[in-house]
Amino acid sequence: MIRKILIANRGEIAVRIIRACAEMGITSVAVYTDADRHSLHVKKANEAYSIGPDSLAGYLNVHRMVNVARAVGCDAIHPGYGFLSENPQFARTCAQRGVRFIGPSAEVIHAMGDKVQARRSMIAAGVPVVPGSEGNLASVDEALALAEQIGFPVMLKATTGGGGRGIRRCDDPAQLRSNYERVRSEATKAFGNTEIFMEKAIINPRHIEVQVLADSHGNAIHLFERDCSIQRRHQKLVEIAPSPQLSDAQRAYVGELAVRAARAVGYENAGTVEFLMDHEDNFYFMEMNTRLQVEHPVTEMITGVDIVQEQIRIASGLPMSYAQEQVQRRGFAIEFRINAEDPKNDFLPSFGRITRYFAPGGPGVRTDGAIYTGYHIPPHYDSMCAKLIVWALDWESLIRRARRALQDIGVFGVKTTIPYHLEILGNAEFQSGRFDTGFVEAHPELTDYSVRRPVRELAAVIAAAIAAHKGL
Amino acid sequence: MIRKILIANRGEIAVRIIRACAEMGITSVAVYTDADRHSLHVKKANEAYSIGPDSLAGYLNVHRMVNVARAVGCDAIHPGYGFLSENPQFARTCAQRGVRFIGPSAEVIHAMGDKVQARRSMIAAGVPVVPGSEGNLASVDEALALAEQIGFPVMLKATTGGGGRGIRRCDDPAQLRSNYERVRSEATKAFGNTEIFMEKAIINPRHIEVQVLADSHGNAIHLFERDCSIQRRHQKLVEIAPSPQLSDAQRAYVGELAVRAARAVGYENAGTVEFLMDHEDNFYFMEMNTRLQVEHPVTEMITGVDIVQEQIRIASGLPMSYAQEQVQRRGFAIEFRINAEDPKNDFLPSFGRITRYFAPGGPGVRTDGAIYTGYHIPPHYDSMCAKLIVWALDWESLIRRARRALQDIGVFGVKTTIPYHLEILGNAEFQSGRFDTGFVEAHPELTDYSVRRPVRELAAVIAAAIAAHKGL
Repeated sequence: MIRKILIANRGEIAVRIIRACAEMGITSVAVYTDADRHSLHVKKANEAYSIGPDSLAGYLNVHRMVNVARAVGCDAIHPGYGFLSENPQFARTCAQRGVRFIGPSAEVIHAMGDKVQARRSMIAAGVPVVPGSEGNLASVDEALALAEQIGFPVMLKATTGGGGRGIRRCDDPAQLRSNYERVRSEATKAFGNTEIFMEKAIINPRHIEVQVLADSHGNAIHLFERDCSIQRRHQKLVEIAPSPQLSDAQRAYVGELAVRAARAVGYENAGTVEFLMDHEDNFYFMEMNTRLQVEHPVTEMITGVDIVQEQIRIASGLPMSYAQEQVQRRGFAIEFRINAEDPKNDFLPSFGRITRYFAPGGPGVRTDGAIYTGYHIPPHYDSMCAKLIVWALDWESLIRRARRALQDIGVFGVKTTIPYHLEILGNAEFQSGRFDTGFVEAHPELTDYSVRRPVRELAAVIAAAIAAHKGL
Repeated sequence: MIRKILIANRGEIAVRIIRACAEMGITSVAVYTDADRHSLHVKKANEAYSIGPDSLAGYLNVHRMVNVARAVGCDAIHPGYGFLSENPQFARTCAQRGVRFIGPSAEVIHAMGDKVQARRSMIAAGVPVVPGSEGNLASVDEALALAEQIGFPVMLKATTGGGGRGIRRCDDPAQLRSNYERVRSEATKAFGNTEIFMEKAIINPRHIEVQVLADSHGNAIHLFERDCSIQRRHQKLVEIAPSPQLSDAQRAYVGELAVRAARAVGYENAGTVEFLMDHEDNFYFMEMNTRLQVEHPVTEMITGVDIVQEQIRIASGLPMSYAQEQVQRRGFAIEFRINAEDPKNDFLPSFGRITRYFAPGGPGVRTDGAIYTGYHIPPHYDSMCAKLIVWALDWESLIRRARRALQDIGVFGVKTTIPYHLEILGNAEFQSGRFDTGFVEAHPELTDYSVRRPVRELAAVIAAAIAAHKGL
């Protein structure tokens, strides 16, 4: 069994992993750059080590990370999400230097990171994929010919992309021509690889993804699906489990597809198989994320399974704790990404000092955060500073409870996505449980909220004066 | 449907009720004394009204409370627990003045508040009671004769008692003689009533209580049981649902007893039927609490039912949301009462300013609190300032998660019961799930913890220096 874990990450996900370690009696080790000296993960871990002044390179330096792990006696590394989490070289270096990587093998990370190879594996396994190129595109002429064949609009995608970057939609040949070099250039900058491929564009699909777990004993299960259709520019904003727009038959079908996909590539540890669902209710494999997902808590809320603890068990060589039939779901859960951004100003990051933070509470409310009163959100990292997760027995209660929880939480000193989330909850289409990835773009009015907060204390004073006047 | 509720209470339970109102679209009205001007319930309610300078009388003045409710347009009052919650005159006054009382009728409150009458009702309904006096004791001689008959030790109890007050154990005739007048005197002081009765003392029983719901449409169900055996001087410290020491057959039996008890007295709204379970596994009716219980969240965690919302539905005349077979339980939940007390100094209250408060988070953790950074806990009220509630799929995971959550929460500026709860969790007897009401007294060593907190930041600095020295 793993005894000491270095967490090669920061922020809320580092705190989340520290909590799992604490529950398992495992020593947690945080690392931090100068910018993160006062971050919550540093305070909460059992040990914390500086990885230098460079705010980004610190979390991206494969060899230093493994060196620190070995030097302080860690027998495993958890990569979290982002940073080195889907870097096959990192997984390989860990393995070579005798530190367990909590995730799948370098080979699987590489194979799923190559979108063209992943498509091929899925086709071989009988998992439906979006019609598109057989492999990488050799030239813009090949792209044009293929687009005519499968029909516009099409998507150009970086072969080693991910996280919504290196993706462009092309509605006609002229757009395809101009985007071809643009996506190649983006791919080079973001991923160091010029390879791109093409898929037919599914217009405003639903984003349905399935959480899977697979261990080294040949067991592979799914933990039901998440609906992440509420996105802005391919960035998820709100995630829901299970999807309110799937029937039980569709749920069973897509869950089974995901397990088949994981088995087909010899997957081990936790992973997520992402599907697009078109408006004829066809499912298409999109990609597999070979790591813990930001939105994993909604799955934990409906199943009760602690996904991070299962990751650690699996990386220790133990069988996972549950067989498929033991995984029961109950109710609905929703996650709101609390980003330090100003929705009214094109979601511009709003870094700075949290002057006051009030955590929400009461039934069905979970927070996974990295903020506290007095914390300075450093400008070098992602603007997501907390996640609010809400659970209720049914969809309608979930909407009501989520609204209450978003009013309950208080983050002052920076602008956040909280008021925007309240607007989403108030939207009738969202409330109906039928929405797709076009939702945010189709509703620009959601940023038309008032920024004035109710001055409750003042209201109470006035009310008291009136009551006194009435002689109560 | 009720539209505006006055909450005749303060602290965490007022905040809990405000949250239920918010989720139901009901306007919440807080009341506050001068000492509570800055309390969280005042900030969170939609409206708040002063009920004057007297810190205790404010929350106990029946007529003023109903006057305020009527003057500000409330159509209902939620009494919470304590204060006026089990005062039949309050329920009656509400009814007479056209304000719905969110709880059972004045008659039922009175009948269950009279412990002798409650015993009689239970005997008539076939619910087992502890052997004891047929009615109130007329004299110390009658008490002595009865005690010889049922056997020492016996308990002398105030007939209109509750909350663990007005109760004395007598091991022999001499003790019975001296306690007879003492309990009468306590009963007079605490409840304004000299009547007392006798029951056979059950030595170190398990405290098992069942949450029931009954509506005005003839439906009555239970939401399983809670184990509140971890008590100190008859005050609950830790509550668990379901009890880890009941078999499924015992669980079904005691649940059915509780529903029978509720039906027997024509109960309406949420209530709790408390039982003693002796070491031969016999259950005896102890009393019925005709109100919301402090520990209701553990039941909410395992069933997903929002008990406060059900109370409001029932008081509105609606049928409750669930039939018995729709109430499913999952996993285990535990609640820790975070009291501003110093366990090392005989649990002496430790009122004052919360210099810093860090809410816990992550999977399975709920807080119901009334504190925030900068809040002064006023000395006039109960020392309980927050409740930490933890859920997990199984008992062993619950213990591990609860320990993590107690380490996760941070309350600075006052002494609290947090370190004491950590000691309870570390106790092997507790971990085994077999304990009784003698647990706290049998383990005085649980207060022998070190008050030194781990200085994590300093440790991190030292670790970083060592790492730098090693040239990482």
